[in-house]
Amino acid sequence: MARKATNITPVAHRVANAQRWRRQGHRGGVMWFTGLSGSGKSTLGFALEQRLFEAGYHVYVLDGDNVRHGLSADLGFSPDERTENIRRIGEVAALFADAGMIVLTAFISPYRSDRAGARRAAKNGFHEVFLDASLEICEKRDPKGLYKKARRGEIREFTGVTAPYEAPVEPELTIDTGALTIAQSLQTLVDYVERNFKLPAG
Amino acid sequence: MARKATNITPVAHRVANAQRWRRQGHRGGVMWFTGLSGSGKSTLGFALEQRLFEAGYHVYVLDGDNVRHGLSADLGFSPDERTENIRRIGEVAALFADAGMIVLTAFISPYRSDRAGARRAAKNGFHEVFLDASLEICEKRDPKGLYKKARRGEIREFTGVTAPYEAPVEPELTIDTGALTIAQSLQTLVDYVERNFKLPAG
Repeated sequence: MARKATNITPVAHRVANAQRWRRQGHRGGVMWFTGLSGSGKSTLGFALEQRLFEAGYHVYVLDGDNVRHGLSADLGFSPDERTENIRRIGEVAALFADAGMIVLTAFISPYRSDRAGARRAAKNGFHEVFLDASLEICEKRDPKGLYKKARRGEIREFTGVTAPYEAPVEPELTIDTGALTIAQSLQTLVDYVERNFKLPAG
Repeated sequence: MARKATNITPVAHRVANAQRWRRQGHRGGVMWFTGLSGSGKSTLGFALEQRLFEAGYHVYVLDGDNVRHGLSADLGFSPDERTENIRRIGEVAALFADAGMIVLTAFISPYRSDRAGARRAAKNGFHEVFLDASLEICEKRDPKGLYKKARRGEIREFTGVTAPYEAPVEPELTIDTGALTIAQSLQTLVDYVERNFKLPAG
């Protein structure tokens, strides 16, 4: 795999984005999912990761599971701490994109200014994906029973119930996950990635 | 590239590490460079990235340039802040490794306990690489003029001068970058990666 020649001249610069993209056939970038709890961020994130991986893309999901227990383990859920959590995720997503990967982030990320910060961090290749299901539908689904807990007052500052959700103003993609099936939403995402990340062959 | 079938069953689990490794022909993991300023961390990091990339590996360098201006932009250089900086880098490196990449980290990371934290975060696939050049040699090289500044008292808590460097006790790899040429050190690294990350063909 690696060449054995020792007469190389070491170069002190990074591998360029264009080199990475060319080799793998697609750009790197951030697909930033935002939406209420129950809008389908994790479900669609993992399903999209699987589909894209099978299609040859380099793809990775950042979500609460791999971020909240590690990078953000020192943060709670106050507004300030949520902001710092999203700031860090935005920076990490930017690093993944710089490494050539398509990174899918599955966080409610309720504040516009926080998402704007993630967009700035990524510089370009940032795609805000609004999973637009109404509070009524999300609360009816309540896959983790969190809305019930929030209504009973057992969770403070729960987005949509006791904390605001600021919907995106100009997202790159909006999916009505309240009306579409998971398979339909997923296909919309796959088509979007193919249009926006894939490089022309040859 | 992507399949067009819409009759898929979305699955809500991650792409497994083994799937990623099989597709790309090598494991993911962390090559954690540690050593004094001037020991060759960045030079060897970028040279190794280039060599590995050309050989088909998925590889990325984390260093002060892409971390200190972003993820750790809120941190200074006090002992506590250095520790938090290294903690975050350890967590991000673990995410990159989980995504199947070989991540090369180029930070002095002078404290044993901080490096132990990075090792824990990575769970496995962590390789501590000690670039073992003496203070005398590093200070003589002084590529950025930092030792001079530190000796004049213009930089506080400079590792090796006014702050401690705790050498690794059992690093996976030690390279005497004071005695070897850059090309020789680089070849040692390439050989190490080939032995430890490459999967058997077929």
